[in-house]
Amino acid sequence: MRMSPPALPRRAAAEFIGTASLVAVIVGSGIRADSLSQDIGVRLLANAAASALGLGLLIALIGPLSGAHFNPVVTLSEWWSRRPGGGGREVLAYIGAQLAGAVAGALLAEAMFGRAPGAWATEPRSALHLLLGEAVATAGLVLVVQGLRHIGRPGLAPVAVAGYIGAAIWFTSSGSFANPAATLGRAFSDSFTGIAPGSVPSYAAAQLLGMLLGMVLAGVLYGTRGPSGEPKSPDPRRTG
Amino acid sequence: MRMSPPALPRRAAAEFIGTASLVAVIVGSGIRADSLSQDIGVRLLANAAASALGLGLLIALIGPLSGAHFNPVVTLSEWWSRRPGGGGREVLAYIGAQLAGAVAGALLAEAMFGRAPGAWATEPRSALHLLLGEAVATAGLVLVVQGLRHIGRPGLAPVAVAGYIGAAIWFTSSGSFANPAATLGRAFSDSFTGIAPGSVPSYAAAQLLGMLLGMVLAGVLYGTRGPSGEPKSPDPRRTG
Amino acid sequence: MRMSPPALPRRAAAEFIGTASLVAVIVGSGIRADSLSQDIGVRLLANAAASALGLGLLIALIGPLSGAHFNPVVTLSEWWSRRPGGGGREVLAYIGAQLAGAVAGALLAEAMFGRAPGAWATEPRSALHLLLGEAVATAGLVLVVQGLRHIGRPGLAPVAVAGYIGAAIWFTSSGSFANPAATLGRAFSDSFTGIAPGSVPSYAAAQLLGMLLGMVLAGVLYGTRGPSGEPKSPDPRRTG
Amino acid sequence: MRMSPPALPRRAAAEFIGTASLVAVIVGSGIRADSLSQDIGVRLLANAAASALGLGLLIALIGPLSGAHFNPVVTLSEWWSRRPGGGGREVLAYIGAQLAGAVAGALLAEAMFGRAPGAWATEPRSALHLLLGEAVATAGLVLVVQGLRHIGRPGLAPVAVAGYIGAAIWFTSSGSFANPAATLGRAFSDSFTGIAPGSVPSYAAAQLLGMLLGMVLAGVLYGTRGPSGEPKSPDPRRTG
Repeated sequence: MRMSPPALPRRAAAEFIGTASLVAVIVGSGIRADSLSQDIGVRLLANAAASALGLGLLIALIGPLSGAHFNPVVTLSEWWSRRPGGGGREVLAYIGAQLAGAVAGALLAEAMFGRAPGAWATEPRSALHLLLGEAVATAGLVLVVQGLRHIGRPGLAPVAVAGYIGAAIWFTSSGSFANPAATLGRAFSDSFTGIAPGSVPSYAAAQLLGMLLGMVLAGVLYGTRGPSGEPKSPDPRRTG
Repeated sequence: MRMSPPALPRRAAAEFIGTASLVAVIVGSGIRADSLSQDIGVRLLANAAASALGLGLLIALIGPLSGAHFNPVVTLSEWWSRRPGGGGREVLAYIGAQLAGAVAGALLAEAMFGRAPGAWATEPRSALHLLLGEAVATAGLVLVVQGLRHIGRPGLAPVAVAGYIGAAIWFTSSGSFANPAATLGRAFSDSFTGIAPGSVPSYAAAQLLGMLLGMVLAGVLYGTRGPSGEPKSPDPRRTG
Repeated sequence: MRMSPPALPRRAAAEFIGTASLVAVIVGSGIRADSLSQDIGVRLLANAAASALGLGLLIALIGPLSGAHFNPVVTLSEWWSRRPGGGGREVLAYIGAQLAGAVAGALLAEAMFGRAPGAWATEPRSALHLLLGEAVATAGLVLVVQGLRHIGRPGLAPVAVAGYIGAAIWFTSSGSFANPAATLGRAFSDSFTGIAPGSVPSYAAAQLLGMLLGMVLAGVLYGTRGPSGEPKSPDPRRTG
Repeated sequence: MRMSPPALPRRAAAEFIGTASLVAVIVGSGIRADSLSQDIGVRLLANAAASALGLGLLIALIGPLSGAHFNPVVTLSEWWSRRPGGGGREVLAYIGAQLAGAVAGALLAEAMFGRAPGAWATEPRSALHLLLGEAVATAGLVLVVQGLRHIGRPGLAPVAVAGYIGAAIWFTSSGSFANPAATLGRAFSDSFTGIAPGSVPSYAAAQLLGMLLGMVLAGVLYGTRGPSGEPKSPDPRRTG
């Protein structure tokens, strides 16, 4: 079914609700797993599974409304690869909604677990190899999103993006945040999935670098032609 | 394939069998996990996976018969969102079958594990943050069900609802019962997934509050228009 | 794609290879999990996941050849529900291939793990509540297979049957063998998934009882009409 | 969507990137799981899940470019079963790209986890029963790939091959490398998924033997006819 896309305010609201839900799932399942298991591996299995399931569902349900970015890296890379003559207002609205939503989601998770909100995360994450891991994680995410469009299967995004994040949490050293908004939100909860505020800028920088790397890799693999071999369409509304 | 819906008694029988099976899966897998693992996180991984798989299968197999509600919250929200001129008799029959089925399922699980039925659950669950968790869990469930209809994909319900419950068991503080009938049934087994009878009314109240919250969120996201942009249809039999 | 079904000897060979592969997966993953994890819950998670994945793949790959029964209970219930005027030779060939395949698969698993074949399993499984669990497990399996045909979705069998077994391993007390051939094979390996030879007859009897219960339940839910509401077809070759 | 296949250099680049990504996922998730969990079973659950998800995604995204072999066994068996009059240059280019990619992927994983590259794996894997396990694992992989073509469902490869590997890691004794290129790459990381260089030739030999066994089994099951019963097509470009 194809719905005509809603107006920008409603799409921004969808990004806010979606990003808040996503971060509540990530942070909440981390807190719960941390309290239930003695084994860090079991905690991360539960946290990764819940995060992947939640992300996939949110993409399926909100994709037809806003495209279900929930992530400034996705918004920027989609904007760039569609090369519209403009769109800056939309990009700003999306990113603003994502950042606000991520913070709201972290605070909701804190409240659900009876924790006093307001404590900053204390886990530092800034070693060089973690930043390499985070750049790899984000490059892979961008490659998945771009690749699905190039092979003409954007409808697989809920399963593919969720599966990718579930795997990347395990195969990278950094926990695969791969999302500057979620990174900011996770600074607002001193728990299993937290990140110290001082490490947020390094993570965000690594994520933007990873985004560029992912765009380059997609170009190497798929070339500059769009799906089905036509020259790339400038249409800014080509959605799946 | 589209089958003509069966008569109300057969649909109520389907709700009874489906709800009994669902609660037997939830309670039984909880008892088994509790007896096999030393780690509460591992127990909940197994219990959540079995519950989600069982729920998804039951929705697929019984959906064409009764709609596969198995849950008064789903019956009430579906009834409300379709705004039929009547239907009260159907609602009462469904909810009665769900409550009876939930108790029967819990007793079947007890018998399968050689436990003497009749012991009430002893786990109290009434802290305020647990009730917030339960309201969030139920709001999300309603949003998934309503959202699938609004985006025109009700056929995804087996996978989407199962995946949602599997995630919500982890990201909420309350265990995500999200179902007043299953909550009642779980009071009949003093085991891993039990809830003390005294906490049942608070949980049910939080679930009804969550249902309203989910309806409001669905309205914010999808508006009052039905799928494909037509004004909402009053047809009480629009099934997927 | 619809292939014309192969001749009976080739179909029996497919049942032999499929059942041997299935039992090798079940027994092998049990041996490996038992040797790697300290926690019985973790062992069963791995064993259940590998068994479900293997079963689903084998149904998908061998279904177009023989129907992918791998299980006398499925062969008998399919034969009964299609009410062909005959078919006894086919039923005997299938069940013989399944029993031989199950033993071969258990011996292959023993060899892969460097164990001297020939030791009988020593785990007794004959308590009354285990037999109730096994009857429930088998009833559910039959209900899934019959239900998929009645709702007109037999193509979902790989996912649905695999998901069912993965869940039933957890929600029943008996381990959900639900298959007299696999039960016999598992007596040939004294390991995590074994069953003492003396308990095999009770398990098989409980499975046959469960089969009848599943047929009755399917009749209650779906009536005696075939898919799409036509009277039940006597065609013995209606496959999905 | 059907894209015309790219030229050989681009396809070889796709095999390089895909194999590197696959080995980085396998080795990286093994290092991370090893560092987080106390229980070897939990480590292997995480490692197997991440490897299966990564493999499935890579097959989906790179399949339309190069066929997504990532594995000399797959390249050789596909080449053989299509019986083209030539193709040797393509086979060499693919295998070269796979071997180089596997080594690059292992080194990337080492770097992501802040480990000094250059240490050879020390885990010996050459006991006879392990080689039997590896032959069984590879035979099953070839049977899955060949079987999907024979039943006319090559589009299921991402899910089926990923699910197969996820199961085979558990049901075989050898860890189911089933891939000479990945086996070479895993010699370059002294970690959870490593293999001592001295065991690489035995594993590769067992894998080639398993490949032959898988071709024979596919012949027994499906005969020499192609899908839909036509005589086997000599077309070297029949892709799904």
